Amino acid sequence: MMENTPKLIPYRHKVQYYETDCMKVVHHSNYIRFFEEARVDFLEQIGAGYVALEAAGYVSPVLSASANYKSMTAYGEELYILVKLSEYKGARFYFTYKVIDVATGTLRATGETSHCFLKNGSLVNLKKELPEAHEQLVNAVGMETVI
Amino acid sequence: MMENTPKLIPYRHKVQYYETDCMKVVHHSNYIRFFEEARVDFLEQIGAGYVALEAAGYVSPVLSASANYKSMTAYGEELYILVKLSEYKGARFYFTYKVIDVATGTLRATGETSHCFLKNGSLVNLKKELPEAHEQLVNAVGMETVI
Amino acid sequence: MMENTPKLIPYRHKVQYYETDCMKVVHHSNYIRFFEEARVDFLEQIGAGYVALEAAGYVSPVLSASANYKSMTAYGEELYILVKLSEYKGARFYFTYKVIDVATGTLRATGETSHCFLKNGSLVNLKKELPEAHEQLVNAVGMETVI
Amino acid sequence: MMENTPKLIPYRHKVQYYETDCMKVVHHSNYIRFFEEARVDFLEQIGAGYVALEAAGYVSPVLSASANYKSMTAYGEELYILVKLSEYKGARFYFTYKVIDVATGTLRATGETSHCFLKNGSLVNLKKELPEAHEQLVNAVGMETVI
Repeated sequence: MMENTPKLIPYRHKVQYYETDCMKVVHHSNYIRFFEEARVDFLEQIGAGYVALEAAGYVSPVLSASANYKSMTAYGEELYILVKLSEYKGARFYFTYKVIDVATGTLRATGETSHCFLKNGSLVNLKKELPEAHEQLVNAVGMETVI
Repeated sequence: MMENTPKLIPYRHKVQYYETDCMKVVHHSNYIRFFEEARVDFLEQIGAGYVALEAAGYVSPVLSASANYKSMTAYGEELYILVKLSEYKGARFYFTYKVIDVATGTLRATGETSHCFLKNGSLVNLKKELPEAHEQLVNAVGMETVI
Repeated sequence: MMENTPKLIPYRHKVQYYETDCMKVVHHSNYIRFFEEARVDFLEQIGAGYVALEAAGYVSPVLSASANYKSMTAYGEELYILVKLSEYKGARFYFTYKVIDVATGTLRATGETSHCFLKNGSLVNLKKELPEAHEQLVNAVGMETVI
Repeated sequence: MMENTPKLIPYRHKVQYYETDCMKVVHHSNYIRFFEEARVDFLEQIGAGYVALEAAGYVSPVLSASANYKSMTAYGEELYILVKLSEYKGARFYFTYKVIDVATGTLRATGETSHCFLKNGSLVNLKKELPEAHEQLVNAVGMETVI
């Protein structure tokens, strides 16, 4: 990440009633959705928004996702979902996440996802087929949102 | 509905943990989803399954949906979602719903949805373009699942 | 609504990937959730936030919900969900909603919900038991968010 | 698993429209929910249902969850979600999952979750506080649903 990189804005998510469960906390599956929200926002911030690629017939499926839950989030609390593009190797790229309570700074969860690009069901060689997206990813490795 | 119509099987839904909210009951938005589950099942039972139509490029958006909540459903309870094809007029067709607790017979909710068919964003005249689906709907008006 | 009422900020919702369905638009059930997001935000803006009441043992279930879908919302689009506290009668209060595409101003949906307050499963007479919340609701009837 | 253990029934899930996304497949976050559905069903089948424990003030949060996506699931397809109680060590127990397309036997995803028991926010020593649940878990290690 170069010195003159514009500062990325950390993604915030206000917890909704429909995201809680009868344990009175956010249902664990929703963190996987929060990761997606923050990842999409991160990619838009670095200029690699997903909407244009999808319009061109590409899709970027999630190949794996994991979350480690550290503490529970209640209704009405607000979360930072911090994202880092941790690796880009072959056709596969990896994000790591930290979910942090805005009010207290408490760590709620960490996580990781991996992704590729497909067109018509086949793996896309980004370097050849989407050199611009490839360059963006190469340059963005190590970039992250911080509080 | 003819005398020899095969008896329709009422749709059952076991309430999942992720469907509850921090009021310790099923979140109200999920009943709209239960209506969909039961409607799809109803259409498959009368031989008007949606998958084939969608493969042929048709979609059937929901034009309106409403629910009246009568009592609350807790985690682990099982529900009947009873469906009636109440009306088919012009290009629009209507379903009504009753959600009933399997164990006690208590009414949980009632509801209504309306629908049409679209192809490439335009309203489909079912009678002309999909005469078979049109006939199925005409014949199915008044049909319903009962306990 | 008095002249010196502070201007309410219209609620915005960016559509997430997980909110779309295979018709490539926002699933209709999610509008019911958007109504909730905007209603909660509205109540917080007028100082009648829900978290404190819930901490005191009160819950405010949704008694009915309805939506009329006017046009479809795609992934990545942003929506205004405008709210109006339309009526407060007896123990029951009513909200109406307009969902509008931020970029184009196109109407996506309208809707209505009704609500009450319960404590230990029994209907709460707000005027007697929660006079402050009662006053807030009385004063807020007719208030709405606008673009 | 003893010879005379009753055969466990593999859990089946029919994919709903609201579980798909605009990639026209099941949204990846929903597999985490399918794991929960199948895990709860597994625990009920071995007589360790969760509802009674929750009524007694215990909760069993998810400590971690992960999924590896192998192939995509379309609307209307039916899935087996196979569960194995893979380990029980200290206060923590682990499940592994295989998601398989019912029609073709194709592997859709694998996964893993870990769990503990809490009461009033504190970790429960199952052996001391819930010896019966402890015994059930000890005896159930290695048990799994198979097709």
